[in-house]
Amino acid sequence: MKNMLIAQSGGPTAAINASLSGAVQEAIRSREIDRVYGALNGIQGILKRTIIDLKSQFSRQEDFFALECTPAMALGSCRFRLPDPESAEGRALFENILETFRLYDIGYFFYIGGNDSMDTVYKLSLFFQEVGEDIRVMGIPKTIDNDLPLTDHTPGFGSAAKFISTAMLEIIRDCNVYDTHSVTIVEIMGRHAGWLTAAAALPRTVGARAPQLIYLPEVPFDPEQFLKDVAEVQKITQNCIVAVSEGVRLANGSFVAEDFQSGLVDAFGHRYLSGVGKYLENLVRDRIGCKVRSIELNVLQRCSSHLMSATDLNEARRIGSHAVRHALAGDTGRVMVMERVSNRPYLINIGLGDVSRIANREQLVPREWINKAGNDVTGEMFEYLLPLIEGEVAYPTLNGMPQHFLLNTELAPPPGRE
Amino acid sequence: MKNMLIAQSGGPTAAINASLSGAVQEAIRSREIDRVYGALNGIQGILKRTIIDLKSQFSRQEDFFALECTPAMALGSCRFRLPDPESAEGRALFENILETFRLYDIGYFFYIGGNDSMDTVYKLSLFFQEVGEDIRVMGIPKTIDNDLPLTDHTPGFGSAAKFISTAMLEIIRDCNVYDTHSVTIVEIMGRHAGWLTAAAALPRTVGARAPQLIYLPEVPFDPEQFLKDVAEVQKITQNCIVAVSEGVRLANGSFVAEDFQSGLVDAFGHRYLSGVGKYLENLVRDRIGCKVRSIELNVLQRCSSHLMSATDLNEARRIGSHAVRHALAGDTGRVMVMERVSNRPYLINIGLGDVSRIANREQLVPREWINKAGNDVTGEMFEYLLPLIEGEVAYPTLNGMPQHFLLNTELAPPPGRE
Repeated sequence: MKNMLIAQSGGPTAAINASLSGAVQEAIRSREIDRVYGALNGIQGILKRTIIDLKSQFSRQEDFFALECTPAMALGSCRFRLPDPESAEGRALFENILETFRLYDIGYFFYIGGNDSMDTVYKLSLFFQEVGEDIRVMGIPKTIDNDLPLTDHTPGFGSAAKFISTAMLEIIRDCNVYDTHSVTIVEIMGRHAGWLTAAAALPRTVGARAPQLIYLPEVPFDPEQFLKDVAEVQKITQNCIVAVSEGVRLANGSFVAEDFQSGLVDAFGHRYLSGVGKYLENLVRDRIGCKVRSIELNVLQRCSSHLMSATDLNEARRIGSHAVRHALAGDTGRVMVMERVSNRPYLINIGLGDVSRIANREQLVPREWINKAGNDVTGEMFEYLLPLIEGEVAYPTLNGMPQHFLLNTELAPPPGRE
Repeated sequence: MKNMLIAQSGGPTAAINASLSGAVQEAIRSREIDRVYGALNGIQGILKRTIIDLKSQFSRQEDFFALECTPAMALGSCRFRLPDPESAEGRALFENILETFRLYDIGYFFYIGGNDSMDTVYKLSLFFQEVGEDIRVMGIPKTIDNDLPLTDHTPGFGSAAKFISTAMLEIIRDCNVYDTHSVTIVEIMGRHAGWLTAAAALPRTVGARAPQLIYLPEVPFDPEQFLKDVAEVQKITQNCIVAVSEGVRLANGSFVAEDFQSGLVDAFGHRYLSGVGKYLENLVRDRIGCKVRSIELNVLQRCSSHLMSATDLNEARRIGSHAVRHALAGDTGRVMVMERVSNRPYLINIGLGDVSRIANREQLVPREWINKAGNDVTGEMFEYLLPLIEGEVAYPTLNGMPQHFLLNTELAPPPGRE
């Protein structure tokens, strides 16, 4: 019997601990896995040997559910890319990792992360094969941006989309109370892909008439055209509501806010850099002159576990569990993916993808899911998004707040040395 | 039998429609009230006679619950202060209002709002008494800021506090994933009173070790002392998390951000004004040099009905219902208030206050509920806040989003002219 190791990497999501929970539960159920370890702060925890025992931390089934409802990485994260194993520095790191794996008698390694982490999975699986070690390495995807190829969507995205659509609906209600002209600009995460910004359109499926304008990073942004678009909306309604991706760029490729704020310094000469929302707010105030405000949804988009999508939570848990089953069946160097079978009823198949085809690639919004003018999404987008935000999660609470589950990070000695 | 009129005013809250619902339900139950009208956009709707029928809009009991879970004013709002009735302009406006009330045969008027609205209640009740009209005018308080005197707390505050404490807890989890030094600054609403900012401390009651620093507007803010405070926290932990009120002021009385950003213009000469969070972010980057970010919780604090406090919702509904009962019993020129009987179990009495004593006054955080250094709150604050955020609300949903209840705003002709 071999042991298993799991780690998390990249940016936080609301669902990433559900994948951890699914994998750990599956490992505990299996008769082929002995100890279940977690590395703290991703691959860095393997290099530094900050490894903890996971099996002993869950005394009740409710603990797993509480973990699933806890945002951000329970095991911590890192932003670290493994260098090329052919380089001298790279070789030493890979040897170091192998030594740790041998010490802890690891037969199965699971890495939950975005496309940088899938690059690690790819390199490690090749390295273990090359040195003739039967250590199976599997990738479990997560990202709020939903920008991974091969998979219909990524765990973590549905919950972020649910937070964005709900927040947008509530902002729409907030905007409608006064009987005056106003523009509200909501800035949404996603530097390259517009999936999250598109989710801001969902209130229109429940009768809201806003947001009227939606700008994704897939289409070049023209501030002059934006002002014209706002003016058009103001002809028909008092409250113009705009959803804009933080990543929109001018035709010359530079980020909108970056280009215009290049000279911005405060009274002490400190450089200011605010987001595109603040920039557009200033533009509207200056050129249109009506009441205007900008709202940045900020990190709540990725950590609002109080508003998880039940669909997302269940898929994240299942994908973690399936990864363990596949590793036990002999797979390695593979990544878990989802294929959509149908929308009504919503059905997905969980399958395997080739990790080399997911690493370092991006899945953007197809141009045909954006309208011709580049300021809205089309019907296909609604069909695609709606099932992903479905379902409420009744998370455990304490003192009127979510009750999170935190891991005991006391380090575990290698087996045989306890 | 007389008719009743109700209106809403001031800034949105998550619970303001629960008071509307409570009042309308009580009116429908009563045998002494005939028609139930709502004025659109507060007192301006009375002046413009944009009046709608409410009774006919609720066909099922669930409609009331859906209304209670809908943020912002269902009847719309205004920012309008009635002038002095002694002035010529004022006299004309009061006569206009009286004419509308006679036309619609109004015997009872309820105004849901903050302390400006209570000023309207006061002036109107005096005016009606002076001209010998038996029109009873009652104030139903709401504010997220919790800055009204006479009452233990105000409907709307508990839900805003619950959103802030939950968001802060989730931000704390988000901050902890990387193994590096960072400062996170969360800017919270409340220009004069620090109650909302104090709610950011609540995660410490469920085991979180942050936020370590809390700055309320009741104590003068010193940027140099702030930098020292941050440095002290960084000696003991990697993640320094700060909650700061948007309303903190320097010892000279000016708002912190205002003073320092006075010269801030972008490349086109447009004036930039960001909040205190952004200002402190820049200050930390410049003077301490570590990773730093600022987060503005923004309007979600006041409109997040997806995270209402059940305590707040129930109190808001009850206070609306009690206002109607008191008006029927003969009261006028009074405001509904809450008196806390005990914390464990949490018990309140709903009573009446003199509206002249609530209008235009503010209830600030007592100095003794803030620590000596002015960078934290004391135990009394936790005792005070915890019951107010208690309880979850299972709001109705549609397409994975909250299902809001919107009023039909078709105008109602005066009775007898239908």
